[in-house]
Amino acid sequence: MSDIETVLGETIRASFANQGAMTLIKATVPIVEAGRAEIHLDHWAGIEQQHGFIHGGVVGMIADSAAGYAAMTVVPSGASVLTVEYKMNFVAPANGEKLLARGRVVRPGRTLIVTQAEVFALRDGKEILCALMQQTIMVMHGKPEK
Amino acid sequence: MSDIETVLGETIRASFANQGAMTLIKATVPIVEAGRAEIHLDHWAGIEQQHGFIHGGVVGMIADSAAGYAAMTVVPSGASVLTVEYKMNFVAPANGEKLLARGRVVRPGRTLIVTQAEVFALRDGKEILCALMQQTIMVMHGKPEK
Amino acid sequence: MSDIETVLGETIRASFANQGAMTLIKATVPIVEAGRAEIHLDHWAGIEQQHGFIHGGVVGMIADSAAGYAAMTVVPSGASVLTVEYKMNFVAPANGEKLLARGRVVRPGRTLIVTQAEVFALRDGKEILCALMQQTIMVMHGKPEK
Amino acid sequence: MSDIETVLGETIRASFANQGAMTLIKATVPIVEAGRAEIHLDHWAGIEQQHGFIHGGVVGMIADSAAGYAAMTVVPSGASVLTVEYKMNFVAPANGEKLLARGRVVRPGRTLIVTQAEVFALRDGKEILCALMQQTIMVMHGKPEK
Repeated sequence: MSDIETVLGETIRASFANQGAMTLIKATVPIVEAGRAEIHLDHWAGIEQQHGFIHGGVVGMIADSAAGYAAMTVVPSGASVLTVEYKMNFVAPANGEKLLARGRVVRPGRTLIVTQAEVFALRDGKEILCALMQQTIMVMHGKPEK
Repeated sequence: MSDIETVLGETIRASFANQGAMTLIKATVPIVEAGRAEIHLDHWAGIEQQHGFIHGGVVGMIADSAAGYAAMTVVPSGASVLTVEYKMNFVAPANGEKLLARGRVVRPGRTLIVTQAEVFALRDGKEILCALMQQTIMVMHGKPEK
Repeated sequence: MSDIETVLGETIRASFANQGAMTLIKATVPIVEAGRAEIHLDHWAGIEQQHGFIHGGVVGMIADSAAGYAAMTVVPSGASVLTVEYKMNFVAPANGEKLLARGRVVRPGRTLIVTQAEVFALRDGKEILCALMQQTIMVMHGKPEK
Repeated sequence: MSDIETVLGETIRASFANQGAMTLIKATVPIVEAGRAEIHLDHWAGIEQQHGFIHGGVVGMIADSAAGYAAMTVVPSGASVLTVEYKMNFVAPANGEKLLARGRVVRPGRTLIVTQAEVFALRDGKEILCALMQQTIMVMHGKPEK
């Protein structure tokens, strides 16, 4: 990991730690690189839906966040990011010991950034695609992340 | 509320009670009618993002669920519903004492149901539109809700 | 129709006339009001898909345009609009003598405008919902419509 | 190209030829493989918007079609496909001599298929990403393509 990526990682982990909702579901953000971020989430009872899989809303939360953090890595210092909109497709139940949400910047722009994310369930050592997302992020210049 | 709506409400509240994730964020489903459902969520620290508003991912969770429950009201008994996909636009920060997510069926079909949801923040007695969603639900015939 | 709406209508019809693609499919924009616009399209062989209905891509074109023109009615003079993204659900085949695409502004903003559109097929005097759309528009300040 | 791909290509080109709308805009479908299809479109005046770029609605048409044809390559004979919904992001003006819409199946299912498409403008020998799409396709078993 380069120095820049270390700084990115620190800024993003500090932002993450300030998000009550990410703490509530027990998500972590172990991977942050230029244009990419990854959120991990262990499976526990508190985030399940009625069939014992991880709730689709929680899958959406970590996909949205992973792609938003990916966007945060490409904006200038002094700017922050805001989700304008996203679209999620669910392709398999979130059935595994752990979820991995991988966000990446597809096209950075001065005002808008387009990203994609994929969410995988880790089950018996295999990664199974559960959801994919396409998202628009707005850059808030002159409004740094708190 | 008619008898049918009472039964619908009971089925849906039973499903809701089985969802760890809805309990975790402290959401309730006070309103269920034919083709409509409403989820309410008080603002508390555990569901915030870094600026003290309710986390966008949580807004997405309750929009998705409100519309999914609206769909559940129009499927035959013995069938359950599954979110295929949804698209959310965020139009204002979720800044209020409480969120109201209102889902409704736009077009019921045998296999697919199209729904919409709006999420409002209740602030000083006024409802402020925070997010809107368009969603596709799949009907699982012969697979009743547990 | 008020004076303002007459001016809006003229600007938008001039823009429309400059769009080769709208002429190609033979669309018209008979209704323009503050926050709303409507595109009409007669059914003819050139815009069909393989089953003799109007092509879904053409349905998308008029939905996108109707909502974009609705957005154009709420931006200041000297500004133009650009489609950032949209999401379409198709709920019935575009089977009728004519299509009506109705766009409306849901939330105007300085930089971004959120809109919705519905497309109806006119068949034997009845309007049948064929498609619905949710869209994000960007306002280009200081870049007037040509 | 394998024998199977030759058959796929013939079926899809026959379907394509029956679509008045694809003929109207002068699109072609030169590439069809298992899980992938590509639509090409030369730039001509009839498909422009008011700034002389190719109309966003036309970009949407070819993205939708390319991904739909990609889906068609993975369904059993005797089945056809229908677009349930799609979401497009426009990331650059469709400014080039030619557009290339590349659709691919992300996840095939018995009832629903999830696809993605990218649209590139070919300009001075370079491919520039203009749009990206995420789409849901429904498989119509026992209803072959006409």
